[in-house]
Amino acid sequence: MDIQLPADVASALDAVPSWAADSELPHFLTGLEPGRDGTLALVRLARAVRTHQRELARLRPLAGHSFAGMFFDPSLRTRQSMHVACAKLGAAFLDLQPGSGMWTLEFRDEVMMDGGAAEHVAEAAGVLGRYADILGIRAFPTRGQWERERTQPVHAAFAAHADAPIVNLEGPMAHPCQGLADTLTLSDLFPEPKRKKMVVTWAPHPKQLPLATPHSALWAGANLGCDVVLTHPEGFELDPWAIEQTHRLAKEAGSSFDVTSDREAALEGADVVYAKAWGAVTGPESTAGGHANAISALRNWTVRSSDLERGNNPRFMHCLPVRRGVVVSADVLEGPRSVVLDQAENRIWGQAALMMALLQGRKKS
Amino acid sequence: MDIQLPADVASALDAVPSWAADSELPHFLTGLEPGRDGTLALVRLARAVRTHQRELARLRPLAGHSFAGMFFDPSLRTRQSMHVACAKLGAAFLDLQPGSGMWTLEFRDEVMMDGGAAEHVAEAAGVLGRYADILGIRAFPTRGQWERERTQPVHAAFAAHADAPIVNLEGPMAHPCQGLADTLTLSDLFPEPKRKKMVVTWAPHPKQLPLATPHSALWAGANLGCDVVLTHPEGFELDPWAIEQTHRLAKEAGSSFDVTSDREAALEGADVVYAKAWGAVTGPESTAGGHANAISALRNWTVRSSDLERGNNPRFMHCLPVRRGVVVSADVLEGPRSVVLDQAENRIWGQAALMMALLQGRKKS
Amino acid sequence: MDIQLPADVASALDAVPSWAADSELPHFLTGLEPGRDGTLALVRLARAVRTHQRELARLRPLAGHSFAGMFFDPSLRTRQSMHVACAKLGAAFLDLQPGSGMWTLEFRDEVMMDGGAAEHVAEAAGVLGRYADILGIRAFPTRGQWERERTQPVHAAFAAHADAPIVNLEGPMAHPCQGLADTLTLSDLFPEPKRKKMVVTWAPHPKQLPLATPHSALWAGANLGCDVVLTHPEGFELDPWAIEQTHRLAKEAGSSFDVTSDREAALEGADVVYAKAWGAVTGPESTAGGHANAISALRNWTVRSSDLERGNNPRFMHCLPVRRGVVVSADVLEGPRSVVLDQAENRIWGQAALMMALLQGRKKS
Repeated sequence: MDIQLPADVASALDAVPSWAADSELPHFLTGLEPGRDGTLALVRLARAVRTHQRELARLRPLAGHSFAGMFFDPSLRTRQSMHVACAKLGAAFLDLQPGSGMWTLEFRDEVMMDGGAAEHVAEAAGVLGRYADILGIRAFPTRGQWERERTQPVHAAFAAHADAPIVNLEGPMAHPCQGLADTLTLSDLFPEPKRKKMVVTWAPHPKQLPLATPHSALWAGANLGCDVVLTHPEGFELDPWAIEQTHRLAKEAGSSFDVTSDREAALEGADVVYAKAWGAVTGPESTAGGHANAISALRNWTVRSSDLERGNNPRFMHCLPVRRGVVVSADVLEGPRSVVLDQAENRIWGQAALMMALLQGRKKS
Repeated sequence: MDIQLPADVASALDAVPSWAADSELPHFLTGLEPGRDGTLALVRLARAVRTHQRELARLRPLAGHSFAGMFFDPSLRTRQSMHVACAKLGAAFLDLQPGSGMWTLEFRDEVMMDGGAAEHVAEAAGVLGRYADILGIRAFPTRGQWERERTQPVHAAFAAHADAPIVNLEGPMAHPCQGLADTLTLSDLFPEPKRKKMVVTWAPHPKQLPLATPHSALWAGANLGCDVVLTHPEGFELDPWAIEQTHRLAKEAGSSFDVTSDREAALEGADVVYAKAWGAVTGPESTAGGHANAISALRNWTVRSSDLERGNNPRFMHCLPVRRGVVVSADVLEGPRSVVLDQAENRIWGQAALMMALLQGRKKS
Repeated sequence: MDIQLPADVASALDAVPSWAADSELPHFLTGLEPGRDGTLALVRLARAVRTHQRELARLRPLAGHSFAGMFFDPSLRTRQSMHVACAKLGAAFLDLQPGSGMWTLEFRDEVMMDGGAAEHVAEAAGVLGRYADILGIRAFPTRGQWERERTQPVHAAFAAHADAPIVNLEGPMAHPCQGLADTLTLSDLFPEPKRKKMVVTWAPHPKQLPLATPHSALWAGANLGCDVVLTHPEGFELDPWAIEQTHRLAKEAGSSFDVTSDREAALEGADVVYAKAWGAVTGPESTAGGHANAISALRNWTVRSSDLERGNNPRFMHCLPVRRGVVVSADVLEGPRSVVLDQAENRIWGQAALMMALLQGRKKS
């Protein structure tokens, strides 16, 4: 930056480590790239940006820089919080919706493009990497192809072809911007998060939602040193690699991670209950019919105030949007224990910190 | 503001009264909230902003602030003039279209959300109130439900759930941003508007348009002390509450307000002819067939130059968009008496003034 | 400008001639309006803006100004590069898509607007000319009506009704922003472009694409004094007026322009190969069936590395989006001779220069 940042912000920014080799770009695809220390440093930077937001708005530290968000799927929070984060720092927000006012994209390699797609992702990504300093990609998984989708192929294609860092705005495996906001929210709630009990609980939903947010929520808790418990009905297992990463982070933080289908035991003594619906990606529950059958038998997984009574005056978390009466009862969602609006607001500050960090060591001349 | 505004702007801003109790938010849902003095103060501020626009663009008095516009219905002027007003003051403009790139919203209370809507307005409004400093809502009425629609239920839902002022970008009962622009336009035309004759005349249109603009136009004229005459065919009555408010404002301003179906008499001696089409909300003309029948018999209500000849060299006003040859003849619309482009431009300045006033006493830290 | 521009930028800006009489607006509809000297001056300004982009981003020379882009057809590069150009200079970018969130427009004169269109272009253009300082229009031709379309009627309608310069963001006859970027790219490649051989070659494509880019590419090469060769199969002639303009510019620059269907001879000794697909606008190849038949017999016009071997180590140019394996082979497109991403990036700098020049002599108070 060629401007004088508030001292708090400058020192927090300096403390964020680079997470890519010199020859590589610092992508943010799973959110695990910065490592545990890097994540905690980003959270401190996010808090400093939040505190000094008015000075930063006048200073415009990212003036002349652009963030391009490519939304293959709908969004309210992600799109608007990225726009606001850009505005707070003086950057431009480019909003792209494939299929609405732009060309349809081809992703296959070595294809003769004689069909409907007018542009290959190689050129689209290459061009956007020239226009924007950071590219954000939202692309949900195609159901029934988990082995392929878990590699986040759309994100990987953009990363392969754009000369700019890629930020995952929710993909099949991770929702790392949500994870960063959740880490900030948890550390706002608990100045000493170590050994706090965070329960991530599956909830019913008519649709088979992605695994990204529960994965990122587990990693948020584990990074902070919470004792994390994941509870879900049998058949709704999360991705094995994501589970393995949670074990690794918990070990690194000196805390614990457990998975159980005993929901009542899991909720016992919880300091935080993080609810999220998702669909199975393998097994009989992964089909549309299997999901519908399973859901109708699992209505008791809806989070209600009686569930929270089992905890230690726990806070309620959810990434939103949320189905009232299905995922959670309205009284819990709107009650004093709910921090869902704080989570949503913290999207702004986490993403603002992330953009500052990504542009810190990599200025376009 | 922590910056030095041009003296004219600063004094005009100071003169705008707060129109909400300390514990409440200063919504702008009918446009009547600031009262007659408040409206006239906003108009003076709008004029000062217009005069000092270049200095303000460099000063960015609203840097770091955001306005989110939620458009349930189409818009050209409202969306673009809000964007420009934001840009002139350094604020960000967030553009939301429900059903395009975002989740569909549930408005019913106490509903089990097991259907198509992914998000409840309570969370959507709550989140947007965290992201933006002001929320704008455009939502036209659903036909055939006037008793419900006249309460502006979509706007009310956002006001109930967002911790931010709500600006009505056209609802069932009022189009207060148009009203503010029209008040500015009228006071540009007539430095002494008192007792000028303003005729608001119904006009034919193939569609059953909302009552919002005619209501707001009546209030604009009454606030300025014009002698306001409303003329429409029988069966096309405006809302009784809106009529009552016009009587109240005219009385307060010491001027007159009359309603008549005698169009020729109404136009006699007019200083301003404000044309607008609308559909009946009750009675036989309120059905699609009743509207079509009535329109075909009322083609003589199209405003033509011969109509203007009855007036006192009157100016022609319309909020746009307008149907040529249906609402008004092309020669009137494009002729020297037409101020429709001034009305449209004044949207910028009225809304810029409104945003400054709304943020004056209510800064997010 | 009331701010101190970098000296290089200020002197380059001063050197751009005005290209409209005092009473007229400096439109940019074919891109030929500034003349050869004016175009070369714009290119020098574009280069100065590119060099000084960071200082300009802080200075915001166009603060308070707005560019409105009206996109009747899809866009990736044009929309995003205009947005970025605006952001680099501190201007606002208004993004309009007729038919998406705004009213449908009527273009016919003297029409009774009793049908589907809610707004006439006269008012839409008039209003946007009040909101924005420059209007950009993208509107592709309707096939089968070339005699009408070659007059660029949509652009002409906006120019007739808006009190603001119109920038063509691709019309039936020209894509002048692409042309400006291509002129910058060519002059980056060849500090001495005089007598360099530039070959513009037709290429196959399943769709009947517009003539705009090949026209603008010819003019770019001719303006720089390149020896320009156009090669295409018989039946795929470009517009006669566009050809005539190329002859005129080549003569003015003291270079040559030839048209041939002998592709192999054309490629001989080329310094630049500019590939572009287009559809015939007259004759048997202009029908959908005629196009499909012709294309299947002309697959050998796909640009391959063996074609480039005929040249003088030529660079490969294309405006993008491009069909891999149809217009050009992937190895050429991604190879070291390809400058397609430079062309795309230079859209930013050409358009930034254009906006500065357009606003230089015409400030809204």
